[in-house]
Amino acid sequence: MRTTDSRGVLMVVSGPAGVGKGTICDEVARMMPDVFLSVSATSRPPRKGEIDGVHYFFKTTSEFEEMIKNGELLEYNRYVNGNYYGTPAAPCDEHIKNGDSVILEIDVEGGRQVKQKRPRTVMVFVVPPTFCELERRLRGRKTETEEDILSRLERAKVEFNLASDYDYIVVNDTVENAAEKIKAIIEAEKCKTLRCLDFICRHITDE
Amino acid sequence: MRTTDSRGVLMVVSGPAGVGKGTICDEVARMMPDVFLSVSATSRPPRKGEIDGVHYFFKTTSEFEEMIKNGELLEYNRYVNGNYYGTPAAPCDEHIKNGDSVILEIDVEGGRQVKQKRPRTVMVFVVPPTFCELERRLRGRKTETEEDILSRLERAKVEFNLASDYDYIVVNDTVENAAEKIKAIIEAEKCKTLRCLDFICRHITDE
Repeated sequence: MRTTDSRGVLMVVSGPAGVGKGTICDEVARMMPDVFLSVSATSRPPRKGEIDGVHYFFKTTSEFEEMIKNGELLEYNRYVNGNYYGTPAAPCDEHIKNGDSVILEIDVEGGRQVKQKRPRTVMVFVVPPTFCELERRLRGRKTETEEDILSRLERAKVEFNLASDYDYIVVNDTVENAAEKIKAIIEAEKCKTLRCLDFICRHITDE
Repeated sequence: MRTTDSRGVLMVVSGPAGVGKGTICDEVARMMPDVFLSVSATSRPPRKGEIDGVHYFFKTTSEFEEMIKNGELLEYNRYVNGNYYGTPAAPCDEHIKNGDSVILEIDVEGGRQVKQKRPRTVMVFVVPPTFCELERRLRGRKTETEEDILSRLERAKVEFNLASDYDYIVVNDTVENAAEKIKAIIEAEKCKTLRCLDFICRHITDE
């Protein structure tokens, strides 16, 4: 039963590489059937096993640039290797309109772009319980060189300074705790007075 | 484990008479062992079975007026019958300092006073799913005269207009749903960036 605002919550989840954003967001989507994870668009070619519309929306570079021109992206970025990555607006807006919520797992710069285009976006920054823990997790992935790890740790320090622009900070002590906190934030945001005043006017004071 | 701000949340819960605030707050306290319901002070004499410090802190009129003079109350009010009712600050502040959260179930005027004294107070307004439902509940209590009921309904309409000053609106469709929403609000509020920045500075960037 939808008792208040019938629109869902658009949420950006950012945080340093290695903090576990992906695992947490997957857990939130598993717990909440009305929460969807946004699928990014990219101009890089699909890897073996990747499915269009599931892992990414695969676009050619000129298709991607057409989307940019038409304002069809909530945010985008071109990586140093020349590949574009971005968030198509239409699937997100459709979910939100239907009352479902959408999580965008994107970086701080992408988050800034989304907030500008959709000012009611709820901004969540995930942090590790300690900086040492982040280093441990990055080394545990065993996919990066020592140089990569040090550069990611440097980048994390810069990103922490940007966390103050976010609405909420979630400490990833365990995946379950962090996912429960994000679930609570989505539920609480739906009760925000600004979202509910329409409901009150419609259903209560006008008997 | 306290991973973020170690201070609890001070929450005001208001709403029209008959909306079920008391039942909801009892349920929240039952679900969350670190949430306490504030005990009011009053200058009215104890009724049979009422225990000092449990149902109320019973004070004489002059003791109560001394508390007002010393600024020991977060809010107070004198009813038409001459009895004082109010919220002693010390027990609330002590719980909050210990990391526990405190719910004050008080009216809109009391809520306004608390917000002024403690600006970080989280303000929650409980509404019935429809105005008809409120009328049904008030009549169901069978404790009030027809005149009382009509005057309470009139008062509810006035109070709804004040709901826009509150941070959150919780629709009491069922006690369980409403209590879950208040639980989510307390958990989300603990993740608010303003409460967590100290933690970030202490535990993360200063390794």
